[in-house]
Amino acid sequence: MAEIKRVLVLHGPNLNLTGFRETNVYGSRPLEDIDAGIMSRAQSFGIEARIMQSNHEGMLIDAIHEHKAWATGIIINAGGLTHYSIALRDALAAVRLPVIEVHLSNIYAREEFRANSVISPVSVGTISGFGGLGYVMAVDAMNSVLEGNT
Amino acid sequence: MAEIKRVLVLHGPNLNLTGFRETNVYGSRPLEDIDAGIMSRAQSFGIEARIMQSNHEGMLIDAIHEHKAWATGIIINAGGLTHYSIALRDALAAVRLPVIEVHLSNIYAREEFRANSVISPVSVGTISGFGGLGYVMAVDAMNSVLEGNT
Amino acid sequence: MAEIKRVLVLHGPNLNLTGFRETNVYGSRPLEDIDAGIMSRAQSFGIEARIMQSNHEGMLIDAIHEHKAWATGIIINAGGLTHYSIALRDALAAVRLPVIEVHLSNIYAREEFRANSVISPVSVGTISGFGGLGYVMAVDAMNSVLEGNT
Amino acid sequence: MAEIKRVLVLHGPNLNLTGFRETNVYGSRPLEDIDAGIMSRAQSFGIEARIMQSNHEGMLIDAIHEHKAWATGIIINAGGLTHYSIALRDALAAVRLPVIEVHLSNIYAREEFRANSVISPVSVGTISGFGGLGYVMAVDAMNSVLEGNT
Amino acid sequence: MAEIKRVLVLHGPNLNLTGFRETNVYGSRPLEDIDAGIMSRAQSFGIEARIMQSNHEGMLIDAIHEHKAWATGIIINAGGLTHYSIALRDALAAVRLPVIEVHLSNIYAREEFRANSVISPVSVGTISGFGGLGYVMAVDAMNSVLEGNT
Amino acid sequence: MAEIKRVLVLHGPNLNLTGFRETNVYGSRPLEDIDAGIMSRAQSFGIEARIMQSNHEGMLIDAIHEHKAWATGIIINAGGLTHYSIALRDALAAVRLPVIEVHLSNIYAREEFRANSVISPVSVGTISGFGGLGYVMAVDAMNSVLEGNT
Amino acid sequence: MAEIKRVLVLHGPNLNLTGFRETNVYGSRPLEDIDAGIMSRAQSFGIEARIMQSNHEGMLIDAIHEHKAWATGIIINAGGLTHYSIALRDALAAVRLPVIEVHLSNIYAREEFRANSVISPVSVGTISGFGGLGYVMAVDAMNSVLEGNT
Amino acid sequence: MAEIKRVLVLHGPNLNLTGFRETNVYGSRPLEDIDAGIMSRAQSFGIEARIMQSNHEGMLIDAIHEHKAWATGIIINAGGLTHYSIALRDALAAVRLPVIEVHLSNIYAREEFRANSVISPVSVGTISGFGGLGYVMAVDAMNSVLEGNT
Amino acid sequence: MAEIKRVLVLHGPNLNLTGFRETNVYGSRPLEDIDAGIMSRAQSFGIEARIMQSNHEGMLIDAIHEHKAWATGIIINAGGLTHYSIALRDALAAVRLPVIEVHLSNIYAREEFRANSVISPVSVGTISGFGGLGYVMAVDAMNSVLEGNT
Amino acid sequence: MAEIKRVLVLHGPNLNLTGFRETNVYGSRPLEDIDAGIMSRAQSFGIEARIMQSNHEGMLIDAIHEHKAWATGIIINAGGLTHYSIALRDALAAVRLPVIEVHLSNIYAREEFRANSVISPVSVGTISGFGGLGYVMAVDAMNSVLEGNT
Amino acid sequence: MAEIKRVLVLHGPNLNLTGFRETNVYGSRPLEDIDAGIMSRAQSFGIEARIMQSNHEGMLIDAIHEHKAWATGIIINAGGLTHYSIALRDALAAVRLPVIEVHLSNIYAREEFRANSVISPVSVGTISGFGGLGYVMAVDAMNSVLEGNT
Amino acid sequence: MAEIKRVLVLHGPNLNLTGFRETNVYGSRPLEDIDAGIMSRAQSFGIEARIMQSNHEGMLIDAIHEHKAWATGIIINAGGLTHYSIALRDALAAVRLPVIEVHLSNIYAREEFRANSVISPVSVGTISGFGGLGYVMAVDAMNSVLEGNT
Repeated sequence: MAEIKRVLVLHGPNLNLTGFRETNVYGSRPLEDIDAGIMSRAQSFGIEARIMQSNHEGMLIDAIHEHKAWATGIIINAGGLTHYSIALRDALAAVRLPVIEVHLSNIYAREEFRANSVISPVSVGTISGFGGLGYVMAVDAMNSVLEGNT
Repeated sequence: MAEIKRVLVLHGPNLNLTGFRETNVYGSRPLEDIDAGIMSRAQSFGIEARIMQSNHEGMLIDAIHEHKAWATGIIINAGGLTHYSIALRDALAAVRLPVIEVHLSNIYAREEFRANSVISPVSVGTISGFGGLGYVMAVDAMNSVLEGNT
Repeated sequence: MAEIKRVLVLHGPNLNLTGFRETNVYGSRPLEDIDAGIMSRAQSFGIEARIMQSNHEGMLIDAIHEHKAWATGIIINAGGLTHYSIALRDALAAVRLPVIEVHLSNIYAREEFRANSVISPVSVGTISGFGGLGYVMAVDAMNSVLEGNT
Repeated sequence: MAEIKRVLVLHGPNLNLTGFRETNVYGSRPLEDIDAGIMSRAQSFGIEARIMQSNHEGMLIDAIHEHKAWATGIIINAGGLTHYSIALRDALAAVRLPVIEVHLSNIYAREEFRANSVISPVSVGTISGFGGLGYVMAVDAMNSVLEGNT
Repeated sequence: MAEIKRVLVLHGPNLNLTGFRETNVYGSRPLEDIDAGIMSRAQSFGIEARIMQSNHEGMLIDAIHEHKAWATGIIINAGGLTHYSIALRDALAAVRLPVIEVHLSNIYAREEFRANSVISPVSVGTISGFGGLGYVMAVDAMNSVLEGNT
Repeated sequence: MAEIKRVLVLHGPNLNLTGFRETNVYGSRPLEDIDAGIMSRAQSFGIEARIMQSNHEGMLIDAIHEHKAWATGIIINAGGLTHYSIALRDALAAVRLPVIEVHLSNIYAREEFRANSVISPVSVGTISGFGGLGYVMAVDAMNSVLEGNT
Repeated sequence: MAEIKRVLVLHGPNLNLTGFRETNVYGSRPLEDIDAGIMSRAQSFGIEARIMQSNHEGMLIDAIHEHKAWATGIIINAGGLTHYSIALRDALAAVRLPVIEVHLSNIYAREEFRANSVISPVSVGTISGFGGLGYVMAVDAMNSVLEGNT
Repeated sequence: MAEIKRVLVLHGPNLNLTGFRETNVYGSRPLEDIDAGIMSRAQSFGIEARIMQSNHEGMLIDAIHEHKAWATGIIINAGGLTHYSIALRDALAAVRLPVIEVHLSNIYAREEFRANSVISPVSVGTISGFGGLGYVMAVDAMNSVLEGNT
Repeated sequence: MAEIKRVLVLHGPNLNLTGFRETNVYGSRPLEDIDAGIMSRAQSFGIEARIMQSNHEGMLIDAIHEHKAWATGIIINAGGLTHYSIALRDALAAVRLPVIEVHLSNIYAREEFRANSVISPVSVGTISGFGGLGYVMAVDAMNSVLEGNT
Repeated sequence: MAEIKRVLVLHGPNLNLTGFRETNVYGSRPLEDIDAGIMSRAQSFGIEARIMQSNHEGMLIDAIHEHKAWATGIIINAGGLTHYSIALRDALAAVRLPVIEVHLSNIYAREEFRANSVISPVSVGTISGFGGLGYVMAVDAMNSVLEGNT
Repeated sequence: MAEIKRVLVLHGPNLNLTGFRETNVYGSRPLEDIDAGIMSRAQSFGIEARIMQSNHEGMLIDAIHEHKAWATGIIINAGGLTHYSIALRDALAAVRLPVIEVHLSNIYAREEFRANSVISPVSVGTISGFGGLGYVMAVDAMNSVLEGNT
Repeated sequence: MAEIKRVLVLHGPNLNLTGFRETNVYGSRPLEDIDAGIMSRAQSFGIEARIMQSNHEGMLIDAIHEHKAWATGIIINAGGLTHYSIALRDALAAVRLPVIEVHLSNIYAREEFRANSVISPVSVGTISGFGGLGYVMAVDAMNSVLEGNT
């Protein structure tokens, strides 16, 4: 199926601190390390990947818009925006690409407000609670989605 | 870390119909096919796996109890029980094993009542929306959990 | 239309006590008597009927699965399960047969929690409050549904 | 029991359009046709029936009052008023006659606000989702109620 | 009063693990030990007791039905079913025996969802938070109920 | 364990009317009679007990404060204050003594607002629905708590 | 103050049945009798009164509009409309006259939905639960309002 | 009917400031003046009245208890306690006397939390929004209640 | 596109008082004046318009029914019915014409209950807060809808 | 009245994709085209207009601040921010200019969360559901607001 | 401005235990120590202060009333009453003095029910979470309020 | 204790307009003036302070990240973001510094949605309602926190 496989990976607010911030919740692997794992896995599938982190809702939306022709799929951990940014959700819906939602911690096992994601309803699927590994799983899943065999 | 890796895989109510039931929602791969994929992936990691399906809440609980010494981890798709079976949740909590929750469809993008899982709060993490592939991803994740490197 | 008309009639938890239990609420006709009425009415329409009662959610789900090829319609009074068993609801949805929901008492005129049925949204229609007669009405309605003239 | 059996059948707002309006929801039988079926069934039981349709809440209430001595039972499809007209409910309660509630569509399987009926708590029972047939079922049920054998 | 005193003691899901499961919450006395205490106390009052544990909602309901003639009272710890099993509640209501509800932990001081029991409204009273001792207290209370002096 | 066992028993608003007030709900034993039973049971365990009734939230709080050094446990029926007096709850939490909550009637089987106790979360356990006997059961339970064997 | 005192008294749906309808709730005095009492009391204050009953929301609104120049005050028992008719409320607000709300039964002590009146926020005050006497009390109160001495 | 008519009139918290406090809400008549009006009206009916004001919930409860034999009816404005004092409500219910609830301001037209009275469900009726006059109306109503003609 | 353009304009309860009623909220232009503006604008587009005002829900529904063949679009300000009249909503849905909802005041900036319109979900769009001008805007919008160029 | 008429038109997140994104919901006219229509209509009224689009909440707030002296009115479609950005709302309230809210789609007829706008309460009015035409209508309305004749 | 500055400082229920009670939550400084700090700070501003602690809602209300002429401001920590005592709130509103609310712990970061204060809406401002220092800050703030320069 | 005391002071959206915007709510002191007061107070304690204002959620988060090594405490008024920005909250939690929340107005006495702060649960304490003075109080409190004596 999809001959060209290009995935935009978006890290939302505070993910730049991963590995240093509340490590009991988010794990101790730095984001660079996680990103290297993503790139490596993507390459093994022949997926071209671009990774971006921003603490700005607007920049994440801009990035989605700018990659709407380039990308064939989006992997996103929207951080705290997950729970309220309908603007971000609308951006994901607007570009009509398959979206996979990732969370480092298990958002369904923390404060009640974290169990609600406004991103989920516009996503193919969600991976939550597996730390940095979750992104690699997302690459696996995205590859299958793009190959058309889930 | 965990020298012995033994995983109990539980399919809840109606999963026996997978591949035949609402295939637009749950996919068209039969459960046998999915199970074969689980076994294969588990073996590749040296994980011993047992797979069971039941439409009976009580049998799922019994199975959890019976495997509490044998298993070192549990992968569960509790089907419709996901949304109300506190008895099942308590069973999972009681055996104090790492639990990974899987759903074929993206439960956060369907009817509102499906977005609430009583299983999630006692799970390490959740994988939702990737069809049969989700179980393979769960095996990957469980292996990392058991190896101690998430 | 449907040349073969075969209906599975399911009685859920506690219905075996009908006629003996809270007769002011559920009436004093024993279930056997009600079942005889169902069989009789079904025969008058050339409908083949099988009737089953169980207090086990899992057995009701199993029965639905086992009859998914045999039956052309299902009449169900899920008893107390009506209000929470999403697993049972999913089983009914899975077999894609016309479902008619029956209740002996008028569930909309009792405790507030009884007014919510998780079965209704996957049913063709609901008959509530007419005691054993409700099942006969359900057979009438099912016959029309199967004949294609409602 | 009830030697004289006289039933008032009330159709609420918009039911005059039945057969022409959202036929996928409400069916394509015109109200006249349904009414003929009601009259015919009633006669077969020796029930005298009067049928009235109004889009006016007040007229429905007036009709209930005016028939409180004449009628021995009421069959009502209150249309959209079902969900809020406490005045209509109070009228039904006031005349202390057995009430059977009918809905063409299955109100429990549509928008959430339609699942709540303020009429149900003052009714003997409810029949929902069987199109025009529902009224005939209601006549059957009313006959049994009036005969004292449900 | 009650010359014959016969009590059915029901342990619901996961109670078979008592003494081994989350001992900080449920205590470290094994169920056998607790059951021995129940039997002993019952005998001291001349109460005949039968004790049963099941992880199956349906089996608990079956047991209630089967003992409806034998028993003069029921002591039940419905475990996780406490919070949603309306079917179990209906079974208890159906047999019209005095019911005493017991919980090992103080369900009102844990997660919010545990503070709601669907069993309580059909019970004479509730004893919550006293570990295995709670059952002995329940036997005391049941004896008084059966003797008619509370 | 606790060599000295001293229990403060507190009766909240309106309990002075017990035996005379809504006897179908609260029983017909006068409070003096119940108190005598408490004293007797306490003595049988070598527990020193002080019993106080007040209709004043402030006096109940004062009493808790005044006995914080003297008492080794508190048994309380907070009456109507049960449902809103966070001040009373805070007093109980402040003195860090084991608290047992008692209710004459089964508060979980009455009006919905009575099912919520702000006292429960700071209590070891709750006994509800056994009339005056509940206090004797509470003394039993308190003795076990103080002896360290629940 | 108000030299001319003219009061419009409005009875809403089903009040024409007062005295015959659920007399345990609404009392056994016929409306005519109550109206005579209103007229008599009004005359004793030199108040000119007009009394109207309708089961039609629209007619009650029309009547308010038509009397907006004539009346100096309105006494209204909106019956079941009390709980939802924002149109009626808006009519009362529109004419900017002092409104007194009356209810035969104590609406705050019945079903929960009856405790909410959409009329109250546009009323000077409410009199609820005193049967026909409530109207006489309303005339007293209206006279004081019109005289300017409450 | 009631040959002896004795009414306890209770003013709750802050009513001692009436006439001086937020006069736009509560009116400018001092409580003494209002009380004089109550006494005068009561005497005109041959009713013996005792009036008490307290800012203490406990004292109001004590007063109700102390007058349970003396009084044949209670008129109460519970002030801010109206909205939460279940203890006070229980006291009123305990003495089983007819209760009339009065409020100076129209509590249904102010902040949303003021529209809920825990006192109303144990009252014969409520008079709200007529300032000091409301008490006189309450005396009228109580006289009718005691005379048996409402 | 639509060669014939015929619009039914409906004013609901209390709109006949526009210009005289709460002018700070609804403006001071009389309805006649607003209607003249509507007619004038409609004519400029070659739209035939009929305007009707009623305080009766039933009459508004009747009018919709009667114009279902004549009209090609409906402009409606349902007044207070906006917030609860599901019967009116169903009428609008039944005739399957484009509906434009108008409100004089900004209903989203007033009491919370006014922010909910049951009419909106069956409308093309809503214009709220522009006084009489809103109707002229609605004519503009309807013309574009009928011309097929929005 | 307002001699100088200057309007700031703000397009929020994702509106730059209008015409390309979910055209069934938002229409197929590109934003440039819509903007041209706005400019043209504004000029016809002698209104000076500035139009800006941003996906950044902060930039929209900055723009509002920067134009607080220049502009005499604001037309805004806040996109997804409509439903949660209290910061944007506060910015609009802070500059005390007339605000008109526009939405391309009918937000009241979509997902429930879209029916709530935090912008509406600080707006003169709302226009929702008319696609690009809605902005032209907003210019008309703003002109009237600025001219003082709505 | 205010030439005379007199502040009433009120400590509600359980504050007398400060320094001894849950010191991890409320700090270890005894109330006497805190009070000394308040007096000292007050004197430095020429503020006359009176400090009172009570566990009785009624006494706190009495104190507010008694100081309504003497005090020019009130600093209050209502303890557990904060969350429900509308009677206390009404007392504060009644005396129309500036009120500053203090809490030792950060009530917004504890149990959800503690985040709601019925006192806040009648206060100038709130200081929460700074232990005994909060009272000194409140004196600073009150001085500024009384001096008229905040 | 803390030898180096460095505080980051963050002003969120719209605070740059302080002194010009809704001065009745937020006061008339310009932000520069308030900032000067903060700097002055900080210096008196030997605290180094940096003050920043931004209308961009992302910039506030960036600033928190950038100062996580430099700062020993954070004082923040998040403006409208207070009520929804979980991303900002997570940033504050991530850097694990003591946070003090300030609001110019008393957010607990305004619209209901303003009473909820997502920032509070990650703050030491909150100061609300004292205008510019609140920041000076926050510096006082922060100094004590940093000195270790609250």
